[in-house]
Amino acid sequence: MNARMRATMHSEAMTIAAPALRRFIRDAFMAAGLTSSDAETAADVLATADEFGVTTHGVKLLPGYFRRLKGGGARPHGQPRVLSEGPAWALVDGDSSLGMLVGVFAMRIAIAKAALSGISYVGVRNSGHFAAAGYYSLQAAKAGLIGISVANDTPSVIAPGARQAVVGTNPFAYALPASRHPPILLDMALSTVAGGKVYQARQQGRPIPDNWIVGLDGLPTTDAGLYPERAALVPVGGYKGFGLALLVETLAGLLSGAAVTFGVGSWMFIPPDQPTQHGAAFIAIDPAVFGPREAFLERVDALIAEIHAAPAAAGVDRITMPGEREFENQCRAQREPLVLTSDVAQNVRLAAEMAGLQIADYLQALPASGSPGGAGQ
Amino acid sequence: MNARMRATMHSEAMTIAAPALRRFIRDAFMAAGLTSSDAETAADVLATADEFGVTTHGVKLLPGYFRRLKGGGARPHGQPRVLSEGPAWALVDGDSSLGMLVGVFAMRIAIAKAALSGISYVGVRNSGHFAAAGYYSLQAAKAGLIGISVANDTPSVIAPGARQAVVGTNPFAYALPASRHPPILLDMALSTVAGGKVYQARQQGRPIPDNWIVGLDGLPTTDAGLYPERAALVPVGGYKGFGLALLVETLAGLLSGAAVTFGVGSWMFIPPDQPTQHGAAFIAIDPAVFGPREAFLERVDALIAEIHAAPAAAGVDRITMPGEREFENQCRAQREPLVLTSDVAQNVRLAAEMAGLQIADYLQALPASGSPGGAGQ
Repeated sequence: MNARMRATMHSEAMTIAAPALRRFIRDAFMAAGLTSSDAETAADVLATADEFGVTTHGVKLLPGYFRRLKGGGARPHGQPRVLSEGPAWALVDGDSSLGMLVGVFAMRIAIAKAALSGISYVGVRNSGHFAAAGYYSLQAAKAGLIGISVANDTPSVIAPGARQAVVGTNPFAYALPASRHPPILLDMALSTVAGGKVYQARQQGRPIPDNWIVGLDGLPTTDAGLYPERAALVPVGGYKGFGLALLVETLAGLLSGAAVTFGVGSWMFIPPDQPTQHGAAFIAIDPAVFGPREAFLERVDALIAEIHAAPAAAGVDRITMPGEREFENQCRAQREPLVLTSDVAQNVRLAAEMAGLQIADYLQALPASGSPGGAGQ
Repeated sequence: MNARMRATMHSEAMTIAAPALRRFIRDAFMAAGLTSSDAETAADVLATADEFGVTTHGVKLLPGYFRRLKGGGARPHGQPRVLSEGPAWALVDGDSSLGMLVGVFAMRIAIAKAALSGISYVGVRNSGHFAAAGYYSLQAAKAGLIGISVANDTPSVIAPGARQAVVGTNPFAYALPASRHPPILLDMALSTVAGGKVYQARQQGRPIPDNWIVGLDGLPTTDAGLYPERAALVPVGGYKGFGLALLVETLAGLLSGAAVTFGVGSWMFIPPDQPTQHGAAFIAIDPAVFGPREAFLERVDALIAEIHAAPAAAGVDRITMPGEREFENQCRAQREPLVLTSDVAQNVRLAAEMAGLQIADYLQALPASGSPGGAGQ
């Protein structure tokens, strides 16, 4: 117990090779009752986010998932299943499985149906928080398709002119395959910034721009200290982001038969024996159904090349496509170990404790940076 | 000629009944060579925008369309046709017809296919500027479906970090049917604000917020006077709006086989004998394929009621859904004549001249406000 306490309180950064981090997450999910296959799937979702540098949606989330798996709110042996379907659509019941498993299951169906029908929609109910939405879009792009993935969430974002949250940040992601370039990948919350960014400013005592949150009077404030108790997030671009959040709520919730708005439980805060009942939706489009895939990929490549060639603003070294820096980070993670900041490292240690794993077992045998064994494996 | 000059220069506001405005637009399109059926379709697109109060996308655009129809860049007798199709998709060649006619044609196909397949995609090439994107989404919502309509355009919006435009404002619209309430309707440019709003500030000599445009150095500026010659529009929410603009470019351009980025001609500025080669895309989703339509509509109604009931911010009288004020404006236009501001009225007079119509013929017999003949017709 003493050792555990110490591990939890320990807040130093942590250096870990990406494959070891992936193994650690897999082992933790197995300790929570998942099969090795499911544990690998879920671990890939989280580890990919850390490799991308999207550390808010990687291993940092593991303790929260672990707690709900042990509590039963997320069912370790849940079986997502198709409730009804047609050639171009399906409705899926997630059976309160881990959101990542439901997401991968549903996007696989969307991809298969789009390959026949050109476009497909798969709506999901009884799912859970599914980490980074972009992962599922990328599943489609890796198969040569356009993928769109969205989910609803418990409300934290106001309607323009309101003083209380009415919709979730409702992530919207899409990915687009290219040929000579990595895919285009956009993954965004429909608030101006994610709540985590406001919380970070609060911790650091910094003021924030006046379009991030509103206070209890519904008026803009730069005081991050009000969030989350006495403030709510503002939709990106005002009515534009709010309108998109409603479209996501429709695709992921209204159309799928999932819970909506306050019917969706907070994956962080509701008791761990409660399912969160998130909804999600996955749309895939297969360009090869409309014409030669290569011709489409060449058009994507040409668009990327054209935008790369645009003259940069004063002080900017280059123009990047959505997702480009994330793929660069992922390549670097093949050569160099990941450095997890203290907030992430703390959650890794906490997850190790919960799962009865020795984190030291995963930190050993780090290849020296730039050593032969690195990039090629 | 003298009378025409006078008409053109005349810049007073104009009061006109909505049905008369619709007839005027129809007659002008017929004078430009359209069949009466096509002229009525195109007139409905423009007149609806004016009834909604979206005056930037209504009759104000008529002289530009007229000029291109007479010049041949938009073909008055063009015949949009399906190039290839499956049960859930189609590719349409617009035959350089008026964008509004191509849009209505394409969304009709999308609706019919979604009614069978659940979801459908119709991509359009060789089209033209199609006025307000929301009109086509609403076509779907009126039929009980979810409609999404997008189009690309000649570049006017930067990538984050660039100093030159690389994508169009690429409108994105969706509409969602409800039962007790009017549809939810979002219709937006993916720039922070439309170029017309910057231009208006320039005309009025007003400074603008620093997230609307960047100057030739790619840095933010509040000087509206730089636009459009020495400034470009900023995408809404930075990388978020830019990423969405790329998704629109993909659906409307890359996937449909249409022209993209600078391959799309400016519908205002290129010679009138040139086709603009806009691309567009229409996605329809029919909830009735997945379950009872009424159950879906009730869920939409409940969401609207919940958001309406959210407490309003200080100084705000009520929370409205996307499109709600537009539908209220349209109802009012059944009772009261439209008041066209001077910039719009000027274009109406110009279009009348071009078409050889007497605008006075359409301004007569205005029912007095509140008279019996008004609302019920």
